[in-house]
Amino acid sequence: MTARLVTGIGELTTWDAERPVLTDAAFVVEDGRVTWWGAAADAPAVDERDDVDGAAVIPGFVDSHTHLVFAGDRAAEFEARMAGEPYRAGGIRTTVAATRAASDDDLDAGVRRHLAEMHRQGTTTAEIKSGYGLTVRDEERALRIARRHTDETTYLGAHVVPSGTDAAAYVDLVTGPMLDACAPHARWVDVFCEEGAFDADAARAVLRAGIAAGLAPRVHANQLGHGPGVQVACEVGAASADHCTYLTDADVDALASSGTVAGLLPGVEFSSRAPYPDARRLLDAGVTVALATDCNPGSSYTSSMPFCIALGVRELRLTPREALWSATAGGAASLRRDDVGHLRVGARADYAVLDAPSAAHLAYRPGVPLVRQTVVGGVPLPR
Amino acid sequence: MTARLVTGIGELTTWDAERPVLTDAAFVVEDGRVTWWGAAADAPAVDERDDVDGAAVIPGFVDSHTHLVFAGDRAAEFEARMAGEPYRAGGIRTTVAATRAASDDDLDAGVRRHLAEMHRQGTTTAEIKSGYGLTVRDEERALRIARRHTDETTYLGAHVVPSGTDAAAYVDLVTGPMLDACAPHARWVDVFCEEGAFDADAARAVLRAGIAAGLAPRVHANQLGHGPGVQVACEVGAASADHCTYLTDADVDALASSGTVAGLLPGVEFSSRAPYPDARRLLDAGVTVALATDCNPGSSYTSSMPFCIALGVRELRLTPREALWSATAGGAASLRRDDVGHLRVGARADYAVLDAPSAAHLAYRPGVPLVRQTVVGGVPLPR
Ligand SMILES: [Zn+2]
Ligand SMILES: [Zn+2]
Repeated sequence: MTARLVTGIGELTTWDAERPVLTDAAFVVEDGRVTWWGAAADAPAVDERDDVDGAAVIPGFVDSHTHLVFAGDRAAEFEARMAGEPYRAGGIRTTVAATRAASDDDLDAGVRRHLAEMHRQGTTTAEIKSGYGLTVRDEERALRIARRHTDETTYLGAHVVPSGTDAAAYVDLVTGPMLDACAPHARWVDVFCEEGAFDADAARAVLRAGIAAGLAPRVHANQLGHGPGVQVACEVGAASADHCTYLTDADVDALASSGTVAGLLPGVEFSSRAPYPDARRLLDAGVTVALATDCNPGSSYTSSMPFCIALGVRELRLTPREALWSATAGGAASLRRDDVGHLRVGARADYAVLDAPSAAHLAYRPGVPLVRQTVVGGVPLPR
Repeated sequence: MTARLVTGIGELTTWDAERPVLTDAAFVVEDGRVTWWGAAADAPAVDERDDVDGAAVIPGFVDSHTHLVFAGDRAAEFEARMAGEPYRAGGIRTTVAATRAASDDDLDAGVRRHLAEMHRQGTTTAEIKSGYGLTVRDEERALRIARRHTDETTYLGAHVVPSGTDAAAYVDLVTGPMLDACAPHARWVDVFCEEGAFDADAARAVLRAGIAAGLAPRVHANQLGHGPGVQVACEVGAASADHCTYLTDADVDALASSGTVAGLLPGVEFSSRAPYPDARRLLDAGVTVALATDCNPGSSYTSSMPFCIALGVRELRLTPREALWSATAGGAASLRRDDVGHLRVGARADYAVLDAPSAAHLAYRPGVPLVRQTVVGGVPLPR
């Protein structure tokens, strides 16, 4: 395969420890990987050349939390919520009914459509969860479909207890036959540990069964109130505790002294008019923070990592650079990946070229579609 | 010219008094105007047919407040503000220096680039102000350039008093030789009536001189604190008082009993971390509300009307339908236009086709670029 030089970069973010961001830069892509980066003036002679004319280039976004296997939408529920009704986990059941009723082809087309939308906005790695099936057959189907599109598939049979089902019996199903059917298609196991969903004991049971089946744990934690989710996540060594909207000092300490990433999902707070998580408190305590969309038709139907960055700066009080780090390297940490989320030598050549001279414009120009081109493994994606 | 039927519309917003929004709809475009609309099943036979396959169609956005004639950016000032520094009107002078130093071609290219960005996001009418020249020559130049791109040009010589200039002498310039040079290129006269910019007497002088020269008045009012801007706007019969962030009951009463539209610019509050205006209070009092971007490199560098709609719902507590009305028909009212902002018979065929089944998705899916196609006067714009 020929080598290609990407040059004329106004601002290049590599997340190299010494020089995380450089101006007038270039990098070389060979066999889908970054093999050199540095000042444009020092670039080696190679076969092909792509001059981006002063644009900023960033690592592709790593969206570490999405729920893309679903059918239907919940625009009416959104409108009611904006008119004053609180968000309730039970709304998930509306999507469960629509998802069960959809054909495989429709679900696959939906994943494909939403991923294409994400690609246009600079996302190059996306985790995808099940969780709108809640039967052995429907959860297995969701993961089988998700697996066609990403390696980062998450078994979330424990999203909510289905209507008319006994909670304890459902945990037995999730940790038994459903897990057996789903584990071959999944990398991760997840649980919605929240009032109205699963309590600490149920969450532990789900996560431990998943670990025993070879899956790595992650947790939906502390979204709607103070709860045991973060503690359970740290206790089982989860890769991430996502939401983290309501945290005690003990929760922050547990995150800081564990390898568990705090996944912040500000689209949820935007779309449910909830208070935002306190990112500064987490960073000040030494916690690793990831930003993700939580793209789902109920609580956060955005697919836009740039929008999450803008909220990260406006509402979570991250600096533009911290927000970009959290949306790229932070997402990679949350998925325990070292090949994405940065553009150092050896990285997968996953990047976005911006219609802007610096990445700060992602927060400075909220809502504006600034991604000119998205490239995965060195291959430009169709617009 | 041939007639074209746009059909297969999942949800059509016309803002007709009886049927403002209809499903399974169609409309006919002839000579760049809407000549029929109604149920798709009742559509007349015409020469051409454009099936949008269930998409929502809305009137093109009318962005009634932008400052597109400028050079440079102020990303560093934005970052400092997000780190805690307050917004100050004086930052305008940074852009004044860059704009004066730019060539005509560069300024024209900037307007063109930003308008293209707006078109991609569904805006079909945009007002453009001067105000980064602040000399006779530079203000005249800004309006001459703006006039190439829109009929809705606004003379804003009274944006801020230039550095090292006596305020009274500057008002004499703005109401004298500068007005003479600018009036031929402008439809509107505007003034930034605010602490640190122009007081009530200066604002009255600027607006009355503009009116005498044949321009119609609009005002930047009550952005940074309680001030006389709204009262002055209503007193002179301004088409709009824009910002309206800080209002007394007397201000709300004055707006309600005048023909002055309240222009709300939530991108400013987002990007300066200021409190949002109270749209519900205005609507409850019977005030006409417009939503606009205020696109400018200082206080609000968004060009996205969908983003303003999302903020309008989340932060200003408009319903999705009220927010869409304010971004289309409200903008038209602010510009005193009856040919745009709606899709009734006689309207200019300015519309946007959404990648969504209903316009509520503009708020429900914040940050996502949902405009699939923008059409002006019946002509689809290039992507
Ligand atoms: Zn989630
Ligand atoms: Zn303005």
